[in-house]
Amino acid sequence: MPELNKLEQIYEGKAKKVFRTENPDIYWIEYKDSATAFNGEKKAEIENKGVLNNRISALFFQYLAKQGVPSHFVELINDREMLVKSLQIIPVEVVARNIVAGSLAKRVGQPEGTPLAKPVLEFYYKDDALGDPMINEYHIAAMEWATPEQMDVIKAIALKVNEILKEFLAGLNIDLVDFKLEFGLHNGEVLLGDEISPDTCRFWDSRTREKLDKDRFRRDMGGLEEAYREILNRLEGKLKG
Amino acid sequence: MPELNKLEQIYEGKAKKVFRTENPDIYWIEYKDSATAFNGEKKAEIENKGVLNNRISALFFQYLAKQGVPSHFVELINDREMLVKSLQIIPVEVVARNIVAGSLAKRVGQPEGTPLAKPVLEFYYKDDALGDPMINEYHIAAMEWATPEQMDVIKAIALKVNEILKEFLAGLNIDLVDFKLEFGLHNGEVLLGDEISPDTCRFWDSRTREKLDKDRFRRDMGGLEEAYREILNRLEGKLKG
Ligand SMILES: Nc1ncnc2c1ncn2[C@@H]1O[C@H](COP(=O)(O)OP(=O)(O)O)[C@@H](O)[C@H]1O
Ligand SMILES: Nc1ncnc2c1ncn2[C@@H]1O[C@H](COP(=O)(O)OP(=O)(O)O)[C@@H](O)[C@H]1O
Ligand SMILES: [Mg+2]
Ligand SMILES: [Mg+2]
Repeated sequence: MPELNKLEQIYEGKAKKVFRTENPDIYWIEYKDSATAFNGEKKAEIENKGVLNNRISALFFQYLAKQGVPSHFVELINDREMLVKSLQIIPVEVVARNIVAGSLAKRVGQPEGTPLAKPVLEFYYKDDALGDPMINEYHIAAMEWATPEQMDVIKAIALKVNEILKEFLAGLNIDLVDFKLEFGLHNGEVLLGDEISPDTCRFWDSRTREKLDKDRFRRDMGGLEEAYREILNRLEGKLKG
Repeated sequence: MPELNKLEQIYEGKAKKVFRTENPDIYWIEYKDSATAFNGEKKAEIENKGVLNNRISALFFQYLAKQGVPSHFVELINDREMLVKSLQIIPVEVVARNIVAGSLAKRVGQPEGTPLAKPVLEFYYKDDALGDPMINEYHIAAMEWATPEQMDVIKAIALKVNEILKEFLAGLNIDLVDFKLEFGLHNGEVLLGDEISPDTCRFWDSRTREKLDKDRFRRDMGGLEEAYREILNRLEGKLKG
């Protein structure tokens, strides 16, 4: 990668900032320490969260690339920043679930922790003003948020990521309960974008069922930094070992 | 149909009562005058509503049968009652939409009346205690509410009913905005069940855009009986003419 510089900021989200570089194909992402939940209603600064999520996301994207799942990830710049391929984000958040938790527990009236007979995908319209409402593929087609062909690619990638990460994390004694993915278009191709971190996944310790993810923040349980660090340590133990 | 009698009631819902007959394949449905909205929070008795919905549903089911869409409908008994095939109801309500209205307007932030580029199907888990939450085909498969093969049949019937009724109603100067269907199993076969009436559809006069459906009750507009009678009159004008 030839020397690139962090140029003007093009977007500041709740967890990251996105900057242009000299290369229109490459964006520069900076992970913030801000934690938010319930569509931004609850907020706090958590020391080192940005560093931990940047490094955890990089490890997941690198592992997925080795297993044949390409993403926007290009390279780590430093502890808090990474270079990624520039995406035109598709405004559909894709949630994959293996175990009932969070909003699904309320929706279907089943206790948290119930295993699902098959993986469940859910789609949400990425729109903070509307509160990220749940949608389905008919809405996506009618509103032209993505084509049916793009949705077929997105669903296949989401289910593949789920299988790969579920198995990999099981080896680290982590249950992959659920996670959220975002996708975007890069030169017409659908690519996995955004982040894969304890902010966007539910991770439970397989033996103790301890929560190692953002639910600690949503539910005022404390120990968020320690939990995220535990995830990073287990990933590094395996991937650098 | 040999002489059948109304035996014990097996279910009383918000709008209808279901009774057994001597024939286990045949149920006896009585339409009530009760109107309810917002998951039963709002209630009233509307004179003749049961009569109008019974007769309107019968006409729709008969017209659909002629177009090759079978349903549970067997025959009218009298003004308020019909015989139907006994179904094991699949707990998934299927909504088909052609024009943005009601919950979809709120969900996607588009004004009521916006035409949809393609028909939209939505699925709701039929569970009053949970408030009929929106679900998708992954939930249905994982919870085993219906098999993927049954869902393929259900989606095909819902889209076909939509095309048939949209065109038929356009000839009566009625816009078919959206409607809800229920399906059930009769000897292993997926059949259209429940009712098709102004309680379960949104009908707008094509010229005046006047609402001719239950939204008049939901929104305290008055004139519910007159609107339902207008629908019945237009249907009878065409189907008996
Ligand atoms: N490769 C990429 N190219 C362009 N935008 C991206 C890329 N990856 C992620 N984004 C977007 O960057 C924004 C910032 O992330 P984040 O702070 O998580 O935002 P949000 O508050 O919307 O969750 C998000 O809108 C996300 O979709
Ligand atoms: N052919 C049928 N066989 C068995 N049950 C049916 C049939 N058609 C409709 N039902 C069910 O009859 C019940 C009564 O209808 P309704 O009063 O509309 O109930 P609800 O309050 O659940 O909307 C509903 O649960 C509906 O699913
Ligand atoms: Mg985000
Ligand atoms: Mg009903």
